[in-house]
Amino acid sequence: MPIVKIEMLPGRGQEAKQKVATEITNVLAREFEVDAAHIYVMFSEVAGGDWAVAGRFLGDPSTKPAKVTS
Amino acid sequence: MPIVKIEMLPGRGQEAKQKVATEITNVLAREFEVDAAHIYVMFSEVAGGDWAVAGRFLGDPSTKPAKVTS
Amino acid sequence: MPIVKIEMLPGRGQEAKQKVATEITNVLAREFEVDAAHIYVMFSEVAGGDWAVAGRFLGDPSTKPAKVTS
Amino acid sequence: MPIVKIEMLPGRGQEAKQKVATEITNVLAREFEVDAAHIYVMFSEVAGGDWAVAGRFLGDPSTKPAKVTS
Amino acid sequence: MPIVKIEMLPGRGQEAKQKVATEITNVLAREFEVDAAHIYVMFSEVAGGDWAVAGRFLGDPSTKPAKVTS
Amino acid sequence: MPIVKIEMLPGRGQEAKQKVATEITNVLAREFEVDAAHIYVMFSEVAGGDWAVAGRFLGDPSTKPAKVTS
Repeated sequence: MPIVKIEMLPGRGQEAKQKVATEITNVLAREFEVDAAHIYVMFSEVAGGDWAVAGRFLGDPSTKPAKVTS
Repeated sequence: MPIVKIEMLPGRGQEAKQKVATEITNVLAREFEVDAAHIYVMFSEVAGGDWAVAGRFLGDPSTKPAKVTS
Repeated sequence: MPIVKIEMLPGRGQEAKQKVATEITNVLAREFEVDAAHIYVMFSEVAGGDWAVAGRFLGDPSTKPAKVTS
Repeated sequence: MPIVKIEMLPGRGQEAKQKVATEITNVLAREFEVDAAHIYVMFSEVAGGDWAVAGRFLGDPSTKPAKVTS
Repeated sequence: MPIVKIEMLPGRGQEAKQKVATEITNVLAREFEVDAAHIYVMFSEVAGGDWAVAGRFLGDPSTKPAKVTS
Repeated sequence: MPIVKIEMLPGRGQEAKQKVATEITNVLAREFEVDAAHIYVMFSEVAGGDWAVAGRFLGDPSTKPAKVTS
């Protein structure tokens, strides 16, 4: 009964999501020996203004982050 | 301090969500013996175009998924 | 296809979890008009030493938290 | 490689999120001794109409919740 | 920067997880055009006694669930 | 009512977690203008054998990952 969640930046099209869902479903069914009917693949978009790496937001190049000390 | 999250397809009304939140709050308070004041119930909509089961997206009947091999 | 996740402190028995799972399944099937076969209810224990409210961990009364300023 | 997720009501500005991301990145880098480059901080807004505490939704003062029995 | 989380029943070996992680990394890098270095794949086991489908826990065939009414 | 979840590799002590929880609670209370009493900080350990970056598991240097093609 695997549940797969994919968090990513916005902008991917339905065709790319379909390919990803299909390949993930196939590899899980094969390697974990589960019925594909029970495999969920869920996509979740996270805006660049809500996702910071090393204290810098991914989606806003004009942001001037406060000093990260390490 | 239970936190309950419910992921579901879009389209449910506030009245239905209220009934669900109330019943979940009541059963958790009773069975887990916690103060209802500390029970969170959170709803999260997942679009059909972001949710695939067996490699097929739930919200788009016209999608032709690539072959799922198992 | 609702997915319900419940995060809680450890220590609840299987009987209480069964009652909770049954009531949640029933209320979701009824209010959201989904087939119960597609309703997942998942429990996840979070230890008191991993869960802080207002800066104090729930599971360790001897913890002396640093001063919370607001 | 810590991943930090913050669920909150809507309405916070980018400046406040930047300060929060910076401070969280700094404290994790210092206390957990990880490279800041590997620290993700992600914000997720939950609408008041999707978030119930003690069976009452946070965002809708006009909601009349069904009776919470405990 | 995709983050992939896979919730599943316990019991899968490291070799199967490696194959799954590799294929997911590859398909995401290719279809979403992201650097594989930024792709996280995380596995999380959920015990059968914590995972109910249609009100029945997956890991305990002796469980007699209360009546699910729909 | 912010909920903060931190996923990290195992091995951090309670003292470090306390400092992190305190600083996160303080910055959220100050920047988001919420009562600290309503701020949850939750830690979740993810084993290195369950966390792959670029197709390589973090916790097992002996693992020989299959070829990542990009």
